[in-house]
Amino acid sequence: MTETQTLSLAEIEEISLKALMVAGASEENAKPLAVATAATEADGVASHGLAYIPIYCEHVQCGKVDGQASPVLSQPRPGVITVDAATGFAHAAIDMGFQKLIEASEAQGIAALAINNSYNCGVLGYHTYRLAQAGMVGLGFTNAPASIAPSGGAKPVVGTNPFSLAVPGSDGEPALLIDQSASTIAKSEVMKHAREGKPIPEGWALDVDGNPTTDPNVGLKGSMAPSGGYKGVGVALLTEVMAAALAGATLGIHASPFSGTAGGPPKTGQFFMAIDPGATSGGYFAERIQDLVGAIRAQDGAHIPGDGRTAKRKVNREAGVAVNVATLDKINAIIAAG
Amino acid sequence: MTETQTLSLAEIEEISLKALMVAGASEENAKPLAVATAATEADGVASHGLAYIPIYCEHVQCGKVDGQASPVLSQPRPGVITVDAATGFAHAAIDMGFQKLIEASEAQGIAALAINNSYNCGVLGYHTYRLAQAGMVGLGFTNAPASIAPSGGAKPVVGTNPFSLAVPGSDGEPALLIDQSASTIAKSEVMKHAREGKPIPEGWALDVDGNPTTDPNVGLKGSMAPSGGYKGVGVALLTEVMAAALAGATLGIHASPFSGTAGGPPKTGQFFMAIDPGATSGGYFAERIQDLVGAIRAQDGAHIPGDGRTAKRKVNREAGVAVNVATLDKINAIIAAG
Repeated sequence: MTETQTLSLAEIEEISLKALMVAGASEENAKPLAVATAATEADGVASHGLAYIPIYCEHVQCGKVDGQASPVLSQPRPGVITVDAATGFAHAAIDMGFQKLIEASEAQGIAALAINNSYNCGVLGYHTYRLAQAGMVGLGFTNAPASIAPSGGAKPVVGTNPFSLAVPGSDGEPALLIDQSASTIAKSEVMKHAREGKPIPEGWALDVDGNPTTDPNVGLKGSMAPSGGYKGVGVALLTEVMAAALAGATLGIHASPFSGTAGGPPKTGQFFMAIDPGATSGGYFAERIQDLVGAIRAQDGAHIPGDGRTAKRKVNREAGVAVNVATLDKINAIIAAG
Repeated sequence: MTETQTLSLAEIEEISLKALMVAGASEENAKPLAVATAATEADGVASHGLAYIPIYCEHVQCGKVDGQASPVLSQPRPGVITVDAATGFAHAAIDMGFQKLIEASEAQGIAALAINNSYNCGVLGYHTYRLAQAGMVGLGFTNAPASIAPSGGAKPVVGTNPFSLAVPGSDGEPALLIDQSASTIAKSEVMKHAREGKPIPEGWALDVDGNPTTDPNVGLKGSMAPSGGYKGVGVALLTEVMAAALAGATLGIHASPFSGTAGGPPKTGQFFMAIDPGATSGGYFAERIQDLVGAIRAQDGAHIPGDGRTAKRKVNREAGVAVNVATLDKINAIIAAG
């Protein structure tokens, strides 16, 4: 069994902030990421919580991300905010853009935030969640280094490229939160199997010629299987068009890896849209969402996307999170070295 | 072999218009649908071209669609256009909204068009295509009567709910046009197998308990299989939130069928977003799209979504389309009865 220690969200945020700042990030850059790390742990997405802090620190130190970056915001049209993340953390750039995005969507009914020169934004649904908290339907896209091949091809052209939709609910939590990648399974799962020397199930990844494989190392050299075949490629392309092309960010085919220390900043992008349901639905939005969610909840065992994270969040906000002691030791060692 | 006769696009439009008007549609309502029918035939999507005209005519006559409807447009915020389709054809409502949508997206950088009290909009990609022709990235959603069950459930809660993305290209045609439903296969294919008494492949549909079936009639009473499992449900929910909830239209769980004559108007919805790449991308959009499409085109046999329709369109605009004589006979009989 993994040894764990229970930390409050404030404690998780505090050690994340300290470690990031010791690694060389300014408070402006470290703080939004520390807040997101605590929220991600609260949501039960441990893979993208504290476990990522040592990687973020390493990426500041090797220059994959500029810990002192000053993002630059523009508003070229009333409904469009752009942020040049200046190769800093995505979180600081998103934080800077969201305030203006929400204001613009209130005024215009719909607005977009396009971010380039950015980095891995962690859990995409963390960001769209915040738009739902502001009463907006939030739709987000983030691109990644290419790992999915086009239909009929074998060479990766798009990343596992998730999209996320957050729908405001009536109790301060989203009624629905979709956060899904375009691949059958997260690439990190294939990497984990490779580290552990375990075979992967067929259908997760393909070899360099596009054939199924159960060897994770062969899959990592080949491509990730798109969810639902060519329709998964379609979803990945949608995200690539939004987060890379529309944001003027680096395409997945040209981006440096998110993992490891080589290649410099990935300079990938994010694209968010915030839509004010009060402007578009003639006042019917809340009723429709309640009906839709109710029809799912009425079925035993049926799953509402986001319910799992919401349930964990409600408990963990009060009770704190049992975190991996080995991860804590790594973070404390970073802090102690500062 | 099916007997065919080659018609020019102008001829296809003309007989479509005549038949719809004989059935009781006003010219304002019939014209946009006749134009779309010719364009759909040009694109090679025969299932939604002339073959649909007798169904449209029947739906005007039985009151599933109001052939004399007067859609009502509003612009509640600078970036939001809404159209109440007044239970008329979706095409007339979309036509009315698109001019304002394009103007608003030019001014605001991004704008949305929400349509309720609507009907089946035919090929969704026909509409987003027109946004790309205007230089905008077009993203569209349209909902349908429920036929996909939630993950873990068995009772349908969302339709096969397609989304479509059209990306402007450099030669007057879209660089990329995605138009895909959230199910593994179109429901019309299962209906076709049922009519022909043929079994369906496993993975297309599920019985009322959510188990795989190869009997199309059992599948039609049960549910359509979502593409890629729960991720297909996620895409269908995205479309339902946009086209039904955000548009204040009727949810798929409450909508009357698109096929047959029972149940009155479905009153479903459409939601379109138009984004001006010049506003969001800092001038990099065309270059990024060229690179992305180039990386796909460089692989032998790799498929670019929309390429098939574009190739057919280029040929058929000049050469006309070989249409099914049996379909033509039906349409001519409708016209002769007028």
